[in-house]
Amino acid sequence: MSTAQKLKMGMVGGGRDAFIGAVHRHAAWLDGQIELVAGCFSSDPEKSRLSGEDLGIAPGRIYHSYEEMATAEAKLPEGERIDFVAIVTPNFLHAPVAMAFIDKGFHIVCDKPLTAQLEDAERLYKAVEDSGLIFALTHNYTGYPMVKEARERVQRGEIGEILKIVAEYPQGWLADQIEQDGQKQAAWRTDPEKAGGSCCLGDIGTHAENLGRYITGLKIESLCAHFTTFVEGRPLEDDANLLVRYENGAVGILYASQISLGEENNLTIRIYGTKGALAWKQEHPNELFLTLKDQPIQTLRRGNPYLGAASQRFTRIPPGHPEAFIEAFANIYLEAARAIRDRKAGRSTYDYDFPTVGDGLYGMQFLSTAIRSAASGEKWTKFVG
Amino acid sequence: MSTAQKLKMGMVGGGRDAFIGAVHRHAAWLDGQIELVAGCFSSDPEKSRLSGEDLGIAPGRIYHSYEEMATAEAKLPEGERIDFVAIVTPNFLHAPVAMAFIDKGFHIVCDKPLTAQLEDAERLYKAVEDSGLIFALTHNYTGYPMVKEARERVQRGEIGEILKIVAEYPQGWLADQIEQDGQKQAAWRTDPEKAGGSCCLGDIGTHAENLGRYITGLKIESLCAHFTTFVEGRPLEDDANLLVRYENGAVGILYASQISLGEENNLTIRIYGTKGALAWKQEHPNELFLTLKDQPIQTLRRGNPYLGAASQRFTRIPPGHPEAFIEAFANIYLEAARAIRDRKAGRSTYDYDFPTVGDGLYGMQFLSTAIRSAASGEKWTKFVG
Amino acid sequence: MSTAQKLKMGMVGGGRDAFIGAVHRHAAWLDGQIELVAGCFSSDPEKSRLSGEDLGIAPGRIYHSYEEMATAEAKLPEGERIDFVAIVTPNFLHAPVAMAFIDKGFHIVCDKPLTAQLEDAERLYKAVEDSGLIFALTHNYTGYPMVKEARERVQRGEIGEILKIVAEYPQGWLADQIEQDGQKQAAWRTDPEKAGGSCCLGDIGTHAENLGRYITGLKIESLCAHFTTFVEGRPLEDDANLLVRYENGAVGILYASQISLGEENNLTIRIYGTKGALAWKQEHPNELFLTLKDQPIQTLRRGNPYLGAASQRFTRIPPGHPEAFIEAFANIYLEAARAIRDRKAGRSTYDYDFPTVGDGLYGMQFLSTAIRSAASGEKWTKFVG
Amino acid sequence: MSTAQKLKMGMVGGGRDAFIGAVHRHAAWLDGQIELVAGCFSSDPEKSRLSGEDLGIAPGRIYHSYEEMATAEAKLPEGERIDFVAIVTPNFLHAPVAMAFIDKGFHIVCDKPLTAQLEDAERLYKAVEDSGLIFALTHNYTGYPMVKEARERVQRGEIGEILKIVAEYPQGWLADQIEQDGQKQAAWRTDPEKAGGSCCLGDIGTHAENLGRYITGLKIESLCAHFTTFVEGRPLEDDANLLVRYENGAVGILYASQISLGEENNLTIRIYGTKGALAWKQEHPNELFLTLKDQPIQTLRRGNPYLGAASQRFTRIPPGHPEAFIEAFANIYLEAARAIRDRKAGRSTYDYDFPTVGDGLYGMQFLSTAIRSAASGEKWTKFVG
Repeated sequence: MSTAQKLKMGMVGGGRDAFIGAVHRHAAWLDGQIELVAGCFSSDPEKSRLSGEDLGIAPGRIYHSYEEMATAEAKLPEGERIDFVAIVTPNFLHAPVAMAFIDKGFHIVCDKPLTAQLEDAERLYKAVEDSGLIFALTHNYTGYPMVKEARERVQRGEIGEILKIVAEYPQGWLADQIEQDGQKQAAWRTDPEKAGGSCCLGDIGTHAENLGRYITGLKIESLCAHFTTFVEGRPLEDDANLLVRYENGAVGILYASQISLGEENNLTIRIYGTKGALAWKQEHPNELFLTLKDQPIQTLRRGNPYLGAASQRFTRIPPGHPEAFIEAFANIYLEAARAIRDRKAGRSTYDYDFPTVGDGLYGMQFLSTAIRSAASGEKWTKFVG
Repeated sequence: MSTAQKLKMGMVGGGRDAFIGAVHRHAAWLDGQIELVAGCFSSDPEKSRLSGEDLGIAPGRIYHSYEEMATAEAKLPEGERIDFVAIVTPNFLHAPVAMAFIDKGFHIVCDKPLTAQLEDAERLYKAVEDSGLIFALTHNYTGYPMVKEARERVQRGEIGEILKIVAEYPQGWLADQIEQDGQKQAAWRTDPEKAGGSCCLGDIGTHAENLGRYITGLKIESLCAHFTTFVEGRPLEDDANLLVRYENGAVGILYASQISLGEENNLTIRIYGTKGALAWKQEHPNELFLTLKDQPIQTLRRGNPYLGAASQRFTRIPPGHPEAFIEAFANIYLEAARAIRDRKAGRSTYDYDFPTVGDGLYGMQFLSTAIRSAASGEKWTKFVG
Repeated sequence: MSTAQKLKMGMVGGGRDAFIGAVHRHAAWLDGQIELVAGCFSSDPEKSRLSGEDLGIAPGRIYHSYEEMATAEAKLPEGERIDFVAIVTPNFLHAPVAMAFIDKGFHIVCDKPLTAQLEDAERLYKAVEDSGLIFALTHNYTGYPMVKEARERVQRGEIGEILKIVAEYPQGWLADQIEQDGQKQAAWRTDPEKAGGSCCLGDIGTHAENLGRYITGLKIESLCAHFTTFVEGRPLEDDANLLVRYENGAVGILYASQISLGEENNLTIRIYGTKGALAWKQEHPNELFLTLKDQPIQTLRRGNPYLGAASQRFTRIPPGHPEAFIEAFANIYLEAARAIRDRKAGRSTYDYDFPTVGDGLYGMQFLSTAIRSAASGEKWTKFVG
Repeated sequence: MSTAQKLKMGMVGGGRDAFIGAVHRHAAWLDGQIELVAGCFSSDPEKSRLSGEDLGIAPGRIYHSYEEMATAEAKLPEGERIDFVAIVTPNFLHAPVAMAFIDKGFHIVCDKPLTAQLEDAERLYKAVEDSGLIFALTHNYTGYPMVKEARERVQRGEIGEILKIVAEYPQGWLADQIEQDGQKQAAWRTDPEKAGGSCCLGDIGTHAENLGRYITGLKIESLCAHFTTFVEGRPLEDDANLLVRYENGAVGILYASQISLGEENNLTIRIYGTKGALAWKQEHPNELFLTLKDQPIQTLRRGNPYLGAASQRFTRIPPGHPEAFIEAFANIYLEAARAIRDRKAGRSTYDYDFPTVGDGLYGMQFLSTAIRSAASGEKWTKFVG
């Protein structure tokens, strides 16, 4: 199956007013390889219908529930039914929705974090592994070409052994209690029933963890987490600061915040090794800073011939023509689509470059460790993976 | 006609190895409102066929020539035939291709500059005006939300009367004679037969001119152009430096270069008025710098509530989640698509926000004035519009 | 006594090859109000002599020991003897040298940290308080005008109540064991006998702590410190990461590192409040970033009329003409000199803007708390002040 | 004569409220090698007296006129009389003051531009050459270490043959007619009697020219100058835009502006060669950007061991501890002082690194060429040197 033949995507979640559903659609559409043909866009059937109409979905394939959707799509003939489903609901629905589609043999692209609860993550992980289906988790920041370049440079040993990782993810959008004012994005993220045991660290801190692990491959040995809820009446933390020890002896600072006014989406990572250092900022994603010992700072810029294969493969346009968030997100889709086409073609699998259900499980173990640390008087707590 | 119903696009040019054709396709696809259904992707029929297959175009709608395509598409029933054609050929073909499709009543999205020769531009302008068809020229940098914000601020009088514009567009990719080594992008741009009377100023300087005019509305009164060809054997200039006088008495510096090593696509504009100043850099497009007299520098960032309606309308994702080149390009497509759907629906037209054939004609008059100035010993030369 | 009459300065430490002694001299000289007339520049008498000769000090006032110097200078007639002494030795000598000069009634400018051991700091604090002498500690980063501006904005309530402070001080110069290769700056800083119980946090982390407290006035309630020694064979930590709770409920991250390759002297502070945020970077010290809720980022630049009195008072040249490290350092000297002249004139004291022995004692208490936390398995430890 | 023995400086100009006089004093004092012992600080004797008192000058050496000062100082015994005079008056006085001191055999440090009129510059040049005295012109931007690094890199051929220079110097402080409101700095700069035939290009554009020539060594072949006076009633231009041809075939853009709101002192230079490019911004002077063909951008930072000898020689403190405007200015003084001490010691001269009377004459020739071009309808005009 060539890329010329579009993959058929279904979507669960992502109705009117949703944020991340729209991002997934742009990402799926960008490269002309995927078409959206079915969906259950909301738990409210009327809203699902209206959202589907907005999107030009055939009426018969706008569903009232995800269970109905999984069942109905599975009955459609191959070539007509969806090739995979994108799950873009609040966290607590990831597991049940995914299980329903796995049951029917559908591949999955799922938003992060993997689930709301660790046990669900473990169950889902097992189900995916047993099924042999493709499961891509949209830790989208790993889709940025310069993040891939950073990883390749680390793997090549350019900065030596890693000594320290500083990963920051400050935002300011939850500085006020906007969840009370009907802001839906805020409402479910601050609701333990829907988000799980963490707001801030689960929503964005897991991205910071994943980014560090993607680039360096380092696993956490133990951590000390300090959670704070600054906005009164909010049941989950809106600020989380962690000290980290990695298995190789490296140390880390990892923090996430949603009450840091003036910050938008300032995910930043700095990695220090015995031979040099790397730094990357999501808000200026086309640049990667590399400093080798006793050398000038190098600004590596996306699209240039001096970059490695991993970054080049996920670059669409020349240097100086910036790519950004949607393009990086689309790189996860591109790679998941490649895996799905390979699977359909019966080709043996490659080493695909997208975050997996295993990454998602690791993220939930990280989150669970941090929640335990924070709950126990911010004690250093061993990572259990 | 709602956005749910996809517009059908044809494409002329943009075969394998082309740069700008791929950008047009990403831009058309990004928002899920346009599908590519037909094309003549190369003047080489075999290459056109292969390119069309790559893109999943039905064999019957991959054409051998643009004339054939215009004729054949016009014969297809409405609802099946293309709604518009995207012209992404080298400059010298813009006019004949556009004329062929105008003859058959098709709307057009065309790459810039409008034509290779001024007379063609004048003829094409007249034909478009007479036809009443939609014609969008992809001066894509005006699609950036923060450029629209700059324009709105100027229109609102925030920086007062404009005194000075400094518009720069340095690149370094033609510092060597790569047109001799089979680099196709370089080959046609440096060939007077295909590019017209200018390489550097035509290819990128017209963007700088258009950007300044889009933001300020100012027209040129006269200019003094210094063209240089640094790479031996190249028949057209690869560096162009201009002094400018605007009709309102403002002054300007406008320069473009393709031999400036270290520069990628560093389009930058600074606008100084009697009350304040604006600055914007294409390589970091989500930020606009505004300084009002005796006030701190303000960094305005895309997606924030403090921005005006024009920028908000062309924003897809929240602040801190950067948008970039393809999104800005897609904004031209979004707006052209809106115009085409309105036309199909028989709705009276709005004040659409995309560059028109009139902008293209102005750009060719600018180019022609600069070529005359450069050819006459770099004399100050009156703009004839 | 007007500024026209130069104050006479003596110096202890700062011989050939010293770093900070030279900085103190530039700072003292910059404004033409202070002259260096005496010194004991090294514990090695020959080196002291050569260093003094380099500096044009009269032979009779180049001393072999600081005790001799204190005694001899005290015997000189007023108008000839030094007005104050600058102490620029390794940490462990600050206390004995200071005590010797206090005994003889001399004012003091002393490098930081206050002492090597907490008990010395307590003793010195008491001696200074009892003596009524001027004692300025060169936490020089508080001398930067834009740091003063930050403080004034916080005091004025512009960013509301403080919620979070992120203070970073990464350097990379001790990534190798250069103390073995005769690098004197490295040698004493990594020697517990000379530096005290901490290398990295004492040398630079105390600056970060002081900077945060200077700007916000917040005191620490408790902290959790993670010390690491990355370079084998080094007896003190070269990397220190801290989580902090402040008395008002604010949280903090404070870290210092000397093994972060690629970092030079990247002291950075970000302060988040309920109404806005401030950020400042020492390596670009003329800019202060202020973001008020729902407003664009403001870049405040030194020397502009929109700034407050505190920053203006310590500004020498117009905006855009950058001032830097030595100027900020000299601001501590300017203010100490003002205090000393006032004292000599018998004027009642003002609220001088320089770090005091009390700030130094607080810094040592901070350091001591962190050392205890790190030594006790990185437990949260209550600040004892 | 060692640096330990302070040189004695006199000053003409630089009274209360002057800007540049104070800068010269800070620069002279910074390194402890120069003391200010005499002066005629204003043409108003009372103001001269008060200014001298502020500075602690002995009453007998505060003079009423520069002629008196030159005569009286010459009569003092060697060792007591001044070693050199710093001339910091408005432009039109540079020549007569300098001539008076040359007559008496004094070395000179003089502010730029050399004179108000070209003929005066020619006369002064000859007088200096005939006298054999040291004459340093404070084109202070060449004192920045990273500018020296740029020069060294060009000389070493790192960026190949120079193709293009873009030198910008925008300021905004004269956007209003502040010369009417008693702003003395503005008053004389906009007065043809005192400033000469140009305001903006003379005051700051000559710095931009000098900076380009210092780094590249290139001389101008011809230029086309566009002068504008935006502020009504101002007799001289406040904005100047130039196109330039250099003798080696390189092209240039050189502009200066004093009406560009939002700009403070934004002197910037970009130099493009056949092998790479350099860029430097005065407002962040510790960084130099170097991009070699097909390589990442390198950020070279002051004080690092990878820099060349020229930059290292003029660096006082380690990387990351920023130096700035006054330090660069002081580098001119350091080097002039070295030359003067050598002369006093009868040592044969070195190749000193400070701008000379020859540089000043070249600058006046440049200015005169630009004034002629602007006055003749902005025609291309041959540089006459």
